[in-house]
Amino acid sequence: MTAKPAAKPKQRTKSRAKAKPKMNLKVIALGGLDEIGKNMTVLEYGDDIIIIDCGLAFPEDDMLGIDLVIPDVTYLTKNIDKIKGIVLTHGHEDHIGALPYILKQINVPVFGTLLTLGLLENKLREHKMLDSTTRHTVVPGEKVKLGQMVVEFIHTNHSIADAVALAIHTPVGVVVHTGDFKVDYTPIDGDVIDLQRFAALGKEGVLLLMSDSTNAERKGFTMSEKNVGKVFEKIFEETPKNRIMVATFSSNIHRIQQVINAAYMYGRKVAIIGRSMVNAVKTASELDYLWIPPRTLIDINETRNYRDDQLVIITTGSQGETMSALSRIASGEHKQINVKPDDKIIISASAIPGNEKSISRVVNELLKKGANVVYGDIEDIHVSGHARQEELKLMLALTKPKFFMPVHGEFMHLSCHKNLAISMGMDKNDIFVMKLGEVLEVNKNEAKVTGTVPVGQIMVDGLGVGDVGNIVLRDRKHLSQDGLMVVVVSMDREMGTIVSGPDIISRGFVYVREAENLMDEARACVLDALLKCEEKNVTSWNYIKGVIKDTLKNYIWQKTKRSPMILPIIMEV
Amino acid sequence: MTAKPAAKPKQRTKSRAKAKPKMNLKVIALGGLDEIGKNMTVLEYGDDIIIIDCGLAFPEDDMLGIDLVIPDVTYLTKNIDKIKGIVLTHGHEDHIGALPYILKQINVPVFGTLLTLGLLENKLREHKMLDSTTRHTVVPGEKVKLGQMVVEFIHTNHSIADAVALAIHTPVGVVVHTGDFKVDYTPIDGDVIDLQRFAALGKEGVLLLMSDSTNAERKGFTMSEKNVGKVFEKIFEETPKNRIMVATFSSNIHRIQQVINAAYMYGRKVAIIGRSMVNAVKTASELDYLWIPPRTLIDINETRNYRDDQLVIITTGSQGETMSALSRIASGEHKQINVKPDDKIIISASAIPGNEKSISRVVNELLKKGANVVYGDIEDIHVSGHARQEELKLMLALTKPKFFMPVHGEFMHLSCHKNLAISMGMDKNDIFVMKLGEVLEVNKNEAKVTGTVPVGQIMVDGLGVGDVGNIVLRDRKHLSQDGLMVVVVSMDREMGTIVSGPDIISRGFVYVREAENLMDEARACVLDALLKCEEKNVTSWNYIKGVIKDTLKNYIWQKTKRSPMILPIIMEV
Repeated sequence: MTAKPAAKPKQRTKSRAKAKPKMNLKVIALGGLDEIGKNMTVLEYGDDIIIIDCGLAFPEDDMLGIDLVIPDVTYLTKNIDKIKGIVLTHGHEDHIGALPYILKQINVPVFGTLLTLGLLENKLREHKMLDSTTRHTVVPGEKVKLGQMVVEFIHTNHSIADAVALAIHTPVGVVVHTGDFKVDYTPIDGDVIDLQRFAALGKEGVLLLMSDSTNAERKGFTMSEKNVGKVFEKIFEETPKNRIMVATFSSNIHRIQQVINAAYMYGRKVAIIGRSMVNAVKTASELDYLWIPPRTLIDINETRNYRDDQLVIITTGSQGETMSALSRIASGEHKQINVKPDDKIIISASAIPGNEKSISRVVNELLKKGANVVYGDIEDIHVSGHARQEELKLMLALTKPKFFMPVHGEFMHLSCHKNLAISMGMDKNDIFVMKLGEVLEVNKNEAKVTGTVPVGQIMVDGLGVGDVGNIVLRDRKHLSQDGLMVVVVSMDREMGTIVSGPDIISRGFVYVREAENLMDEARACVLDALLKCEEKNVTSWNYIKGVIKDTLKNYIWQKTKRSPMILPIIMEV
Repeated sequence: MTAKPAAKPKQRTKSRAKAKPKMNLKVIALGGLDEIGKNMTVLEYGDDIIIIDCGLAFPEDDMLGIDLVIPDVTYLTKNIDKIKGIVLTHGHEDHIGALPYILKQINVPVFGTLLTLGLLENKLREHKMLDSTTRHTVVPGEKVKLGQMVVEFIHTNHSIADAVALAIHTPVGVVVHTGDFKVDYTPIDGDVIDLQRFAALGKEGVLLLMSDSTNAERKGFTMSEKNVGKVFEKIFEETPKNRIMVATFSSNIHRIQQVINAAYMYGRKVAIIGRSMVNAVKTASELDYLWIPPRTLIDINETRNYRDDQLVIITTGSQGETMSALSRIASGEHKQINVKPDDKIIISASAIPGNEKSISRVVNELLKKGANVVYGDIEDIHVSGHARQEELKLMLALTKPKFFMPVHGEFMHLSCHKNLAISMGMDKNDIFVMKLGEVLEVNKNEAKVTGTVPVGQIMVDGLGVGDVGNIVLRDRKHLSQDGLMVVVVSMDREMGTIVSGPDIISRGFVYVREAENLMDEARACVLDALLKCEEKNVTSWNYIKGVIKDTLKNYIWQKTKRSPMILPIIMEV
């Protein structure tokens, strides 16, 4: 296209023709890059901002006590007047889960397909925000004008029904955002991802592609959801006498449909347990995404009226989550369901990284109770919802973007996705592995990173949003490792003499009855140090606290090689 | 063999001929069943006890602050006079790691091969126990008489050199314990596992087989270690210009040998980093298990004298361990080594369950610094050291045991291994999936579980062995989730009136500057409750502490939906 490619790859820019003095489109990810979850991307053109998705992330291992993590939207609150709306690609937590929190800061209209909004409404209802949120239902193929941009919704396949990709028609060109997707030629709802539309957009010219990188490391093609259904049928066929339980993700409506189909085929009733599963099945069947044959669904309390060979139970807990229905069944704590020997239990999911050990724990418990557990690679009872390498290449080949920005994944996934595009002949200077908050400015001719906006992880703990920071986490970490020792001493306000104490109380440090000597000696040690302060007429409480801390810390380290948190408290009397 | 098989499978017994009034062999696992690690098995015949291995386990996720876990050996300390020795199958931590702790309780002779004892000696030296421990070096093929039992050491293949299985010749029959093993037809040291000896033992009659279940879920055969070497050569070939680093387990001497071979072939110098890697390489080369060509090994400080294409660095950290050399390199905190763009970094290991996220973290950091990282399934850069299903069947077919006890693995692995044996025609009543501490009594004719001995997980935290129990762990867990609030109030010893306070100090709960109001209100709330106690002339400190706890707990839950630990302290003045 151009005789002289830009010679400044460091600036990540590439001019293809003479730059015109025109407004650029800004693309900013506030979440979803170099991380799993918390997906949120901002498109800004002039006075218009569109937000794509608004997801949550689950806390990292070092975020002790944190319930969930949401994006920092400082940039959006500062530009609130520009925002035309939030468009949702699908109803997974990592795409809609932060909305109840973010909408409190930026109350703008939300656009999504029927099921996506149905699942969102469950959330908004819990947060008492249903009435205050403007929602617009869209259908795949529809276009919505938001300021100077037009958002087109394109049908895709994913592990949740009603997922869409987006083509955003902007004054500088078309941006395609795939959302999460896979290519399923035999999907449960009959509609293959709209490859033709991606092809047509590619033919007309796509300026920028943002594409799902979750499975970019995996070779080949992701199998069709329908394969799982065949395995279910085989297992049902081979299990004529026993009860069957299936644990899966509550949002995987197509998976649930296939369990119900198999149950119907083999004349079994279906009971649903687990709060999120009950909600998802209710919403999906009300909105006609789930077809439940008449007289198939029964209440969990009715199961006692049926023989084992007449029952299927669909449950949450495929990730071994401690409070989930399956975990409680495994540990014998579930009110309605006890595991019986030879129950067939299918865990239809793969482990989300970090959950491997919890899942093993549940499987071991179920096996010990005599259940027959199908998990892991024993049978093909799970397929991913994300495109593998060959599908990602297909998307690149159909859309033929001028610029490419891999999204949704850790750095290793984004980086792999970049290499895929390079292997197809794309110039590496046209590919942007971005950081959160970096501003990619794009126009017809060039794309470059021009600056950054504030980004971050806002931690939600109970009702608190953002009130737990690094100091609190550091203290929790410290407390979790070696516990704490509180040293209290009452001192005369004026004289600086000891009135009572020191008393030492410990928690999470050592079982005190076993260590009475240690505690007595520690107290003597601190008292000794305090008396020396008294002799020297020290009256600075801070100094005395420091003495207590150092004295006790050294003593305890020497005796135990542990470092509990030490909290000296001086009561003035 | 018998016309009337015993009709009592519930008792897990099976008489095959008339029982003679003879002494039984007792088999008791003190570790290694329904868990990964902490392997330790006791064989007892009359007045003789032999112990097989003495391993540690790494702490579970809920064992906050714990360094490692060792077996409870109460049963052995009570029978200390019977113990003839500890025989070791190989030098991995989960087989020798508890010895420094256990030998303090039962100081008995230790038997093992040269490398196994070499690695043990490094440990004993650190614990200053080298002189006090009697050690006997054995060679594969050797037999050692221990009381009425004779222990025969049989060469096997595993991910550490010099691994052995054991055939214990007892008055009631031969017990075969495989240790950890795989079948490698092209091992690095040239010696295939001694299949002929297992066959001969089987021909003569094996009473009981205890066999490694780690990979019992995996189909097929484990690949040969030599495959990894070929991949190393390929990668070295394809990396003519850049520095190469390889991270692997320090105990995997054969893997390290292959890296050194490839380095030698391509004219590169080798530097070793990471304390355990340095120790292992030193011990293994001193004992001739590792062949290092002259002028190949250089000190890490000498690397600056060589070009990148002349260097290979072998390092620890393949599991993403926070303090390991590779982690520090990745985060830029290593003193001698900085990652350079296009460094080729090979992580030659698979993730031990639970370490997936730490490894990803390190890989992401290395990729961000521009390194070229080979990890996971990108290339065949790792093979397991444990037998898969076809190898396990081979072991069963060669030894043809009368009774079978799967060992080394979680319940799911043991259970899978049992099913493999059943699929080969073994009677399920002859297979014993045991629990820790259960006593299996065996004689020529029958085997049955007759009782239990004490077992447990002894937690080591710093210098403390067993002084951290469930209460301490529960407190650490509580502290880690929501932190704590300490409420201190000084009260008049006689009058029961408030002298000073209440003061509230919190840690790990909320960032206090952001929550000043909350803390002020909490204090007011507690003061109010205390004043009511004063009015009512309450003088029971325990009652008042209860009031403080409940008042604050309710207030904080209502305001924040969090439950910090609340520690009320009353100072009498």
